Amino acid sequence: MNNEHYKYLLTENDLPKSWYNINADMPVPLTPVLNPQTREPITAEFLNVLFPMSLIEQEMSTDRYIDIPEEVREIYKLWRPTPLLRARRLEKALGTPAHIYYKNEGASITGSHKTNTAVAQAFYNKIDGTRSLTTETGAGQWGAALAVACKFFDMNLEVFMVRGSFYDKPYRRIIIESYDAEIFPSPSDRTDYGRKYLQENPEGPGSLGIAISEAVETAVKSNGEKKYSLGSVLNHVLLHQTVIGQECLKQMEMADEYPDVVIACCGGGSNFGGIAFPFLHRNLTEGLQTRIVAVEPQATPTLTKGLYAFDYGDTAKMAPILKMFTLGHDFIPAPIHAGGLRYHGMAPQICMLYDAGYIEAVAIPQLETFEAGVLFAQTEGIIPAPESSHAIRAAIDEALDAKEKGEERVILFNLSGHGLLDLSAYDAYHQGQLVNDTLDVNPEEIRKMLPKVDF
Amino acid sequence: MNNEHYKYLLTENDLPKSWYNINADMPVPLTPVLNPQTREPITAEFLNVLFPMSLIEQEMSTDRYIDIPEEVREIYKLWRPTPLLRARRLEKALGTPAHIYYKNEGASITGSHKTNTAVAQAFYNKIDGTRSLTTETGAGQWGAALAVACKFFDMNLEVFMVRGSFYDKPYRRIIIESYDAEIFPSPSDRTDYGRKYLQENPEGPGSLGIAISEAVETAVKSNGEKKYSLGSVLNHVLLHQTVIGQECLKQMEMADEYPDVVIACCGGGSNFGGIAFPFLHRNLTEGLQTRIVAVEPQATPTLTKGLYAFDYGDTAKMAPILKMFTLGHDFIPAPIHAGGLRYHGMAPQICMLYDAGYIEAVAIPQLETFEAGVLFAQTEGIIPAPESSHAIRAAIDEALDAKEKGEERVILFNLSGHGLLDLSAYDAYHQGQLVNDTLDVNPEEIRKMLPKVDF
Repeated sequence: MNNEHYKYLLTENDLPKSWYNINADMPVPLTPVLNPQTREPITAEFLNVLFPMSLIEQEMSTDRYIDIPEEVREIYKLWRPTPLLRARRLEKALGTPAHIYYKNEGASITGSHKTNTAVAQAFYNKIDGTRSLTTETGAGQWGAALAVACKFFDMNLEVFMVRGSFYDKPYRRIIIESYDAEIFPSPSDRTDYGRKYLQENPEGPGSLGIAISEAVETAVKSNGEKKYSLGSVLNHVLLHQTVIGQECLKQMEMADEYPDVVIACCGGGSNFGGIAFPFLHRNLTEGLQTRIVAVEPQATPTLTKGLYAFDYGDTAKMAPILKMFTLGHDFIPAPIHAGGLRYHGMAPQICMLYDAGYIEAVAIPQLETFEAGVLFAQTEGIIPAPESSHAIRAAIDEALDAKEKGEERVILFNLSGHGLLDLSAYDAYHQGQLVNDTLDVNPEEIRKMLPKVDF
Repeated sequence: MNNEHYKYLLTENDLPKSWYNINADMPVPLTPVLNPQTREPITAEFLNVLFPMSLIEQEMSTDRYIDIPEEVREIYKLWRPTPLLRARRLEKALGTPAHIYYKNEGASITGSHKTNTAVAQAFYNKIDGTRSLTTETGAGQWGAALAVACKFFDMNLEVFMVRGSFYDKPYRRIIIESYDAEIFPSPSDRTDYGRKYLQENPEGPGSLGIAISEAVETAVKSNGEKKYSLGSVLNHVLLHQTVIGQECLKQMEMADEYPDVVIACCGGGSNFGGIAFPFLHRNLTEGLQTRIVAVEPQATPTLTKGLYAFDYGDTAKMAPILKMFTLGHDFIPAPIHAGGLRYHGMAPQICMLYDAGYIEAVAIPQLETFEAGVLFAQTEGIIPAPESSHAIRAAIDEALDAKEKGEERVILFNLSGHGLLDLSAYDAYHQGQLVNDTLDVNPEEIRKMLPKVDF
């Protein structure tokens, strides 16, 4: 099963023509999305305040494949298909018989997988007549991706960036501004919720939940002038990311191998769903048994320690209620550097599959992820995003396990982004300033804050 | 001559097997390199204090092609061949009939073309028994590239980084440290020259010339324990970069076009030589007439305003004397953000070809380069290095000229690196804090400081 290649490249002609919709193959019934006010199943009309109808249709669709519009494929061609690499130098450093492959989504124009859905969402909003979007961003990868997408389609964008990241990661702010978007630290004084929150917690670092509330409020109160865009969690977002896994299927075929295990970090679930769903499709429809592993920080152990229950998507209870593993909608995460993995909840589709045993999950402490990230940089050359280093850590652990057992395991992981804008985190790691935050979860405390629903 | 592609990808099998040596085709006699002490032609023995014999042989070789060692090619495969892209979205924004292509060297593991020669130099030093290297870096791209290369070959590295950049661009320092290299702001207190300079100019921002002096002194005074590595100017460095142009030749063939003009920014000359020499080879040997344009900042107009004369390569007069266009070896550049374009001199091969009329040169003010860089980011998505924005500016000007004349001009430029670690410069640009520094050159002032030589 060996060959000499390092890199598997697809041409523009191999760019997927459709997105894969996991809803078509779900082995368990879909859980409903609820209106945060009525706590009844949500209507398209309600969602339409936030999203254009075309994206709502995708959100609810059970069609297995959804065509990628030509305008979106044209933009994808700027960086897609992304390379699949065999991490031969990492394998050698580990002395493992395992074969480690990684999909380099860091090769995108904004350095992460987020651009895949940003371009699609901007496009559908544009054809629906939307002229302005609002969104939130944690570490800034999503904000940067949506900013360039809005620029490409000549739309305005307001970004609410979690305050801690806004000041700690000025480079992401500058990128977002370079694409002409407006950006504000959240909590901000631009929304009722932000002002209220600031009054009660003037020094709070903010959270993704709060920033979502501010972005949602801005859209809701715009009299239809602005719509809202989300970078993860929802089905249409994960759908757009499935170009990743579809390309991997072709590239693994070029390598004449098939993964025994597919690994991705998991915050809201978009890069995970993106690489995993096309492999899950084969598991579900062809009886293959590839292991699918979601990796999360021990500081935000949503899948591994959260409650599986209906909860609000945001702190202010303005976003839809979703059935998901949750740490509670008013959860304030420890200041770990994997900003994209600090959300309190998780994409419902991933939760259903995890709950039903189709997906594994593992939680990893921060220092181990940085150790893995540095080893990856020193062998493969690329400095990974702290989020992606979670996947690297799990891949290394798989490779070492294979070594111990003398197995030729084939490991595939998603390098969701590069870490060139997270270097202050590496600096802190080199200086010994980082710690392992482990969250002790009290299920009863979470349960108390959950909305009461009849589903 | 049209087709629908955005991107031209080569496989690992297309990776060049040899470097192209312009010395074999020089239409004018090579100028000698002089010993800075005797001012006589330099000997291999003298150079061997700084460089391994294998690199000295390459420096002096007139063989047209030099095999790329398999160990170097294996590492190149981590990111090479790099993509060639047709900048269709930029063309559209300009409304030009011109076809604009760019080679994306920013796709390398450290984000610039510098890795091409870093890996080769580390390899040759390694097989020659060198265990420690010293070098200087301006903006930090070269330092990062040599740091990862040294890590790959398990060698130590000391980097002297121009003080202004060291403090203004902490991210590049952190990258260099992430690859385990040591890094010091220059002028430093680690060398006689640095200490002397600091005493006389305690607040000076440093310069590449001073940093070179410190790196050279460290190697010279190491009793043979350390060798020195340079990221530009010398022939063996430009030689290693010719993989860029060789790949472009194949990729332009895939695009079924041939460039009317090839453009690159030009500091010491390495990314310029890398893309231009393989096209110059065809000009020189097949009578083609592709225009070759070097782009420099108006703040360091080496080719356009410098003196063509023998000058020292560094400020302390320890490095070899080269015949080159020079602004004088004690030139302290204005603090423009294109740190890689602030050297006082230029690769002798490029100077000979420019002097003899085989190359054009143009100098561009800073604000125009940032304007071009932002337009590129907003159309093609990638935020370019401030150095590369010089090439973008010239390419845009060519495209607008073609528009005015109604010509289907084919333009190729080198995107030598991305600007993700230069975002503070973009921030300053957005804030209106940047200015156009234009250097007034007084040839007599330069002439006074030149070494007296008999050649």
